[in-house]
Amino acid sequence: MQDALRLQTFLKDCQARVEQTLDRALPAAEQPPKRLHQAMRYAVLSEGKRVRPTLAYAGARAIGLAPERVDAGAAAVELIHAYSLIHDDLPAMDDDDLRRGRPSCHKAFDEATAILAGDALQTLAFGVIAEDKHGDTSDGARVQMIAALARAAGSIGMAGGQALDLESEGSELDLVMLENIHIHKTGALIRASVQMAVLACPDLDPEQANALDHYAKCIGLAFQIQDDLLDVEGDTDVIGKQSGADAAHEKATYPSLMGIGPAHEAANDLITDALDSLSSFDEGADPLRWIARYIVNRDR
Amino acid sequence: MQDALRLQTFLKDCQARVEQTLDRALPAAEQPPKRLHQAMRYAVLSEGKRVRPTLAYAGARAIGLAPERVDAGAAAVELIHAYSLIHDDLPAMDDDDLRRGRPSCHKAFDEATAILAGDALQTLAFGVIAEDKHGDTSDGARVQMIAALARAAGSIGMAGGQALDLESEGSELDLVMLENIHIHKTGALIRASVQMAVLACPDLDPEQANALDHYAKCIGLAFQIQDDLLDVEGDTDVIGKQSGADAAHEKATYPSLMGIGPAHEAANDLITDALDSLSSFDEGADPLRWIARYIVNRDR
Repeated sequence: MQDALRLQTFLKDCQARVEQTLDRALPAAEQPPKRLHQAMRYAVLSEGKRVRPTLAYAGARAIGLAPERVDAGAAAVELIHAYSLIHDDLPAMDDDDLRRGRPSCHKAFDEATAILAGDALQTLAFGVIAEDKHGDTSDGARVQMIAALARAAGSIGMAGGQALDLESEGSELDLVMLENIHIHKTGALIRASVQMAVLACPDLDPEQANALDHYAKCIGLAFQIQDDLLDVEGDTDVIGKQSGADAAHEKATYPSLMGIGPAHEAANDLITDALDSLSSFDEGADPLRWIARYIVNRDR
Repeated sequence: MQDALRLQTFLKDCQARVEQTLDRALPAAEQPPKRLHQAMRYAVLSEGKRVRPTLAYAGARAIGLAPERVDAGAAAVELIHAYSLIHDDLPAMDDDDLRRGRPSCHKAFDEATAILAGDALQTLAFGVIAEDKHGDTSDGARVQMIAALARAAGSIGMAGGQALDLESEGSELDLVMLENIHIHKTGALIRASVQMAVLACPDLDPEQANALDHYAKCIGLAFQIQDDLLDVEGDTDVIGKQSGADAAHEKATYPSLMGIGPAHEAANDLITDALDSLSSFDEGADPLRWIARYIVNRDR
């Protein structure tokens, strides 16, 4: 219980921190083209959970890195996430009208504006790291952060996972294929979030870097399993999007393939694995530990 | 006439060079997700004019930089250009069925794949610069190239220009507003193309850098005026897309606002201005000079 409260404080701090960075990085709503800039701000500055930025900050805390050093990386992963949600919601993609409890971007604005807003947010993600004026982050580190983000977001990362997911609709998927989709669609960007801290610290012990990456892999998959479970068990008002949407789209999910009980078990096993990989870290890694537990206990 | 032949040789060299870089940077068509990767290759490896990469190579030649130094930057601007064409052609945007004489990406594949292919190509553009293994380009230069590309492609560059263009459809535009659209929609990326060479050469004389940027500004606008003129005067078979499309969409263009004759004159004046800005350069800048003249003389 005390951990849950400490996580709430940590989450709030990270949310405030990344939202300040995002607010500064995004063009003003009054700056032309106004409609595009309003759509970008609408999609990014809504009440998101900010899981990915929080992972970047928690990773920084675990390795003793000042939070300033991951401000740009944290904002960048959130911008990539926000762009992907806009495009995923489009009629030609998942066709979702609701996102975070509000009309999705193409509903609040229009399809063309939503496409362009997503495009421009992706651009901004790379721009934020390249333009980061934080003196302690070397150019070499920034190039590596951009390379890692590009691998995570591109056709063999997040965008590729979304393509695999679309291809699979209506066809029979087994667990291996489903896991492959998740590893790419959501896992890659979650790994990249922790990488933003690891890469900002070029002198980090490689074993610690590997342990953090393994942690991120495990919680990334657990996060998606929990998302699938929330779609079955969650409340539309709480999760902020239509529950039961996966079943309506005849999508293969962990619960549909292995049952609700075993899906919960699989998520819990992954979290145990994630926590084990942090065994050599001191209390600086506690936020990472809290996040791991939160992922399987959250209700939205 | 001799210049035209020398330009043809230069263009062919640049095309071969950038197509080799692009072919290597793009995921193989057989690599999953196959449909996505096929769509990406389809959109990029069609017979484009490769104007932007050619400008990067011509800029490099003008300042005595080895072409290897701009391979990544040249590929990156072409990837941004290719992604923007895919998204511009979507039904929610310009709704074009034809591109470079072939079905546009969403016609050859499907809308969802086209959206994702555009997304992944944009990602790849930044990845190509970040992953560039060319030892002579410093990390600092690469960070600056990425920052310049992000400014040129984003909401206050190319994507913003497309938003302004869409907003303006059906409304009365004057020349100032039209020019503002062009400066962003096509001009920003053309300037960035020359910048790829300038930024790869951090010890360049600032006056030379400014002269090259002015050159790029002038030819960028001339390029768009010529595009407008080709839409009125060109042949669908030659330009590789439906001629008369602008008029059909009731779009304001240079010829529609100022007449065909004055539009030709405006383009020619800009080319004279562009050539004047190269006066302090030796024959290394000849390719830039040939390109300037080609822009107003091309028929596709």
